[in-house]
Amino acid sequence: MDTPPQTHDPSPHDDVRMRGFAARSTVDDAVRWVDEHTCPLPPAKEPITTAHRRVLAENVVSAINVPAFVRSAMDGYALRAAESSGAGMYNPLTFAVVGQSLPGRACGRTVGAGEAVRIMTGAPLPLGADAVVPVEVAQESEGRVAITDTVAVGKHVGSIGEDIAAGTTVLQAGRRLRPQDVAVLASLGIAEAPVVGQPRVRIIVTGNELVQPGEQRGEHQIFEANSHLLRGLIPRDGGIVATVEHVPDDRDAIRAALIAPGADVVLVSGGSSVGAEDHAPSLVAEVGQLAIHGIAMRPSSPTGIGRIGETLVFLLPGNPVSCLCGYDFFAGRAIRLLCGRSPDWPYRHSTEPLARKIVSAIGRVDYCRIRRDLAGIVPLAISGASILSSTTRADGFVILRAESEGHAPGGTVTVHWYDD
Amino acid sequence: MDTPPQTHDPSPHDDVRMRGFAARSTVDDAVRWVDEHTCPLPPAKEPITTAHRRVLAENVVSAINVPAFVRSAMDGYALRAAESSGAGMYNPLTFAVVGQSLPGRACGRTVGAGEAVRIMTGAPLPLGADAVVPVEVAQESEGRVAITDTVAVGKHVGSIGEDIAAGTTVLQAGRRLRPQDVAVLASLGIAEAPVVGQPRVRIIVTGNELVQPGEQRGEHQIFEANSHLLRGLIPRDGGIVATVEHVPDDRDAIRAALIAPGADVVLVSGGSSVGAEDHAPSLVAEVGQLAIHGIAMRPSSPTGIGRIGETLVFLLPGNPVSCLCGYDFFAGRAIRLLCGRSPDWPYRHSTEPLARKIVSAIGRVDYCRIRRDLAGIVPLAISGASILSSTTRADGFVILRAESEGHAPGGTVTVHWYDD
Repeated sequence: MDTPPQTHDPSPHDDVRMRGFAARSTVDDAVRWVDEHTCPLPPAKEPITTAHRRVLAENVVSAINVPAFVRSAMDGYALRAAESSGAGMYNPLTFAVVGQSLPGRACGRTVGAGEAVRIMTGAPLPLGADAVVPVEVAQESEGRVAITDTVAVGKHVGSIGEDIAAGTTVLQAGRRLRPQDVAVLASLGIAEAPVVGQPRVRIIVTGNELVQPGEQRGEHQIFEANSHLLRGLIPRDGGIVATVEHVPDDRDAIRAALIAPGADVVLVSGGSSVGAEDHAPSLVAEVGQLAIHGIAMRPSSPTGIGRIGETLVFLLPGNPVSCLCGYDFFAGRAIRLLCGRSPDWPYRHSTEPLARKIVSAIGRVDYCRIRRDLAGIVPLAISGASILSSTTRADGFVILRAESEGHAPGGTVTVHWYDD
Repeated sequence: MDTPPQTHDPSPHDDVRMRGFAARSTVDDAVRWVDEHTCPLPPAKEPITTAHRRVLAENVVSAINVPAFVRSAMDGYALRAAESSGAGMYNPLTFAVVGQSLPGRACGRTVGAGEAVRIMTGAPLPLGADAVVPVEVAQESEGRVAITDTVAVGKHVGSIGEDIAAGTTVLQAGRRLRPQDVAVLASLGIAEAPVVGQPRVRIIVTGNELVQPGEQRGEHQIFEANSHLLRGLIPRDGGIVATVEHVPDDRDAIRAALIAPGADVVLVSGGSSVGAEDHAPSLVAEVGQLAIHGIAMRPSSPTGIGRIGETLVFLLPGNPVSCLCGYDFFAGRAIRLLCGRSPDWPYRHSTEPLARKIVSAIGRVDYCRIRRDLAGIVPLAISGASILSSTTRADGFVILRAESEGHAPGGTVTVHWYDD
């Protein structure tokens, strides 16, 4: 296919096996289909101990004041601020220590004139006192404390609701929970957070040539890598790997795996293309809808997208770079949308100078692995879908849009970096 | 303490309770102590299914060629390239289809003159053939295939070792495993990766005033937040939360919790300062070494650092912002170093224009929460160690070094962003 591929109205009835794709969808069409058929999963209550990095499904409004009582912000002595007037290094003022206030319980003692109560950080301020003198400027002995600095009213005292006032919207729906957000929920007494559900993802690996690492391998077999790739990608995007199944290149076995319940997303690795044993596309068309099959991109052009009932199905090419690329363009996007995250690529990106030209074909999106060199960005590969090691040698990748013929050296490109 | 704090030679025998810190260590000293007492944990074998994002402890050298046999890179027809000479749209050349090569098994048939073998991606190239004509330029009917394009020798054929040659160092020690790195290990047949161990972290929460979210709270009690904060931070840095214990402000209970075995790192939340009930510092000095106690920083100045046997101990202030800050400066660094990662802050950072001045005190490191405004970066707070919501309202933070008096508006600052 040297001519630019065309967009076509996807027809699930084409049998492309040993014929090739008559036409291919555009990447934009495929992304649009994903976006139109994906929305955040219903909310679920998640214990805050495991709610980190989940997405809030609802606004959180505080039902309480934090703190709920007037408390000390320092270890020191609670007293009447006005009575500290004139205290200094050369003029210590002394107070009778009439009691102690510890965190967690009321202090029975009221502070009167000339009196102080020993108090710890977080303990309730005793009645009568209106400030705390920190231990650093106080010296206690024999039932009296000498202070060597003045304090103003309210000094080192935490007022009711100063952290969070009751009725405040503390966190907004759509927020991805930071560690401190979860801590704020805890401080409000909230034990379960209302978060967007987590998509359950089933991985179906096809291919009679595959054996698992650690197993005995025949002369023409290869070690299966794609499930191990996907096991790293799916949790990154917020999905749960529900099951990993290894299925022979057999229509009945693949059909049974496709229609098994219990997943929001099914990823099929291998058998997605136009080979005689590539059963998955026609099976998806048979038991569901094959909306997209064949995409104008390199690698990953044999990617298929559809659904069976409410379950999204992504047919990812068996070539490992294609699997990574097809996952990242489409399946990862769907998983991120399902769990309420931004659909954007989950890679850090930056604009960088290009040291050597990148060549691309008009009409096709190219995924070009690159390295950062002293001189700038250097392309590694666009083709070579089977060369997985290109994605470990690379520092990141550049996406070349369908209308691009490539980039000349000296220009700039947007690089997505594989590492954080 | 309005005078700049001094560095001091830490003496574990100072009892600072209700006296205050006579002097404070510098942040640099504390960081140096952490770095000097922390090195990557011993290597462990981790199944590749759970090795994602772990750090390789050894170089990985491939024992095999990938692929290990000559294979087709396309679905199509294997034949002798020289015989395709002259083929074109208006000059189809036909070959007898004498067999089929499927992935995973040897193809018994040798390709002779005028012959072709139907072949799938990943299947072994039959003897006699030296190229593959893709299905897109081939049409098979009644035992013969007509091809409409020429192919060069080796076209669409994957040679032995073209992805990875036996003997190649595929991944270097110290590498944080990307999803595709784990897939490369799988493709080499490696079922267990040699990775740096994961630090087990015990969380000890002290404070009689604390109740758990969801529990009944008394009038002067507060909901415990710090363990929920730390549960999000520790896994981010590569640690495992081994246990979370809630311990009363009681010396014997805290001592027992401190000396319990089974952790690489112990984090104590609360009771780290100079209050009458702040037992942890003197207990660490008693059963181990309290190397640092009191640090010239705000918030988190009551942080303590030491060790009990081989276990690193961090005494984190009970005030939640101090807990976050003390964790991020020191404990998180230790956990990252233990699991072989970079000690650097795990936050994305960038240089940004400052819209309003930030004031800092010389002699003290300040952790200033900021927001990004239309005009630039706006400081939110330096003090207010109890105001946890400041870290949810903030977009990130700026560190002001000990020698800094702050920054004037119009200058630039390095912002660390809380969100990815």
